[in-house]
Amino acid sequence: MRARELAQPYPTVTLGSPALNAARLVADRHLPGVLVVDADGAPYAILPASRFVRLLVPSYVIEDPALAAVVDERHADRLCASLADRAVADILPRERTAAPAVADDDTLLEVAALMARERSPLVAVMAEEPDGPRLIGVITASHLLDRLLSVA
Amino acid sequence: MRARELAQPYPTVTLGSPALNAARLVADRHLPGVLVVDADGAPYAILPASRFVRLLVPSYVIEDPALAAVVDERHADRLCASLADRAVADILPRERTAAPAVADDDTLLEVAALMARERSPLVAVMAEEPDGPRLIGVITASHLLDRLLSVA
Repeated sequence: MRARELAQPYPTVTLGSPALNAARLVADRHLPGVLVVDADGAPYAILPASRFVRLLVPSYVIEDPALAAVVDERHADRLCASLADRAVADILPRERTAAPAVADDDTLLEVAALMARERSPLVAVMAEEPDGPRLIGVITASHLLDRLLSVA
Repeated sequence: MRARELAQPYPTVTLGSPALNAARLVADRHLPGVLVVDADGAPYAILPASRFVRLLVPSYVIEDPALAAVVDERHADRLCASLADRAVADILPRERTAAPAVADDDTLLEVAALMARERSPLVAVMAEEPDGPRLIGVITASHLLDRLLSVA
């Protein structure tokens, strides 16, 4: 079996997408994170859900847990302002988590080896096309595990 | 709103559970990972799905990607043997990822602050009971994000 057969659609955002839209996508669909693609549609980074939570919490609350207990969450309207006028490119952590990628004709063991090396929850699957590589989907760790256990 | 109101049931395994059962739980329910609890039912570690993938792939394949392309995945029956006679305690990485925990009466901002500090995809919610703390559920980052965005 090849990577392309296990690839599934996965929500992506671009570097220029509004950060708040990306946050709502994660929240509405209960995703562990979103895949960020660059202007050419190539995987650029993974933005985990915890990153958005971090951006919504004022840094003085993160640094002083005692304050977290007394700040009212209804002030979250002000918290959201931290996302409102920013693009996805502006909220990437300095040390971004690159999205590992495989070719669509790679074997499942090649996918597994990459995932194991990178300790990544997903890998992007790319097809080589005349006008450049194109993202055809992702393979998640749980989906790959399902496949590896079922052939055993 | 308090942590207990946002806590949801989440699959757990114990340190003594068969590793293969834990892997099948992740695979069957397409989980990003499982929560490992100790003999007292307290959160001990998070085992991400990628950890199971890593255990199924022979180390010579992880170290030499060229080999991954030529090893047949039908040999996965032998790969599964790496999980078959082991308990969850035996497959935890040396540097385990501890599961962060909050009290059931903590505020959502306290939960968010902990999640942000730990960069964790989930936190365990514990209730203090006469015979000790009891796990009542977990809060995932995406679920918390959903709540924080909706009050804004």
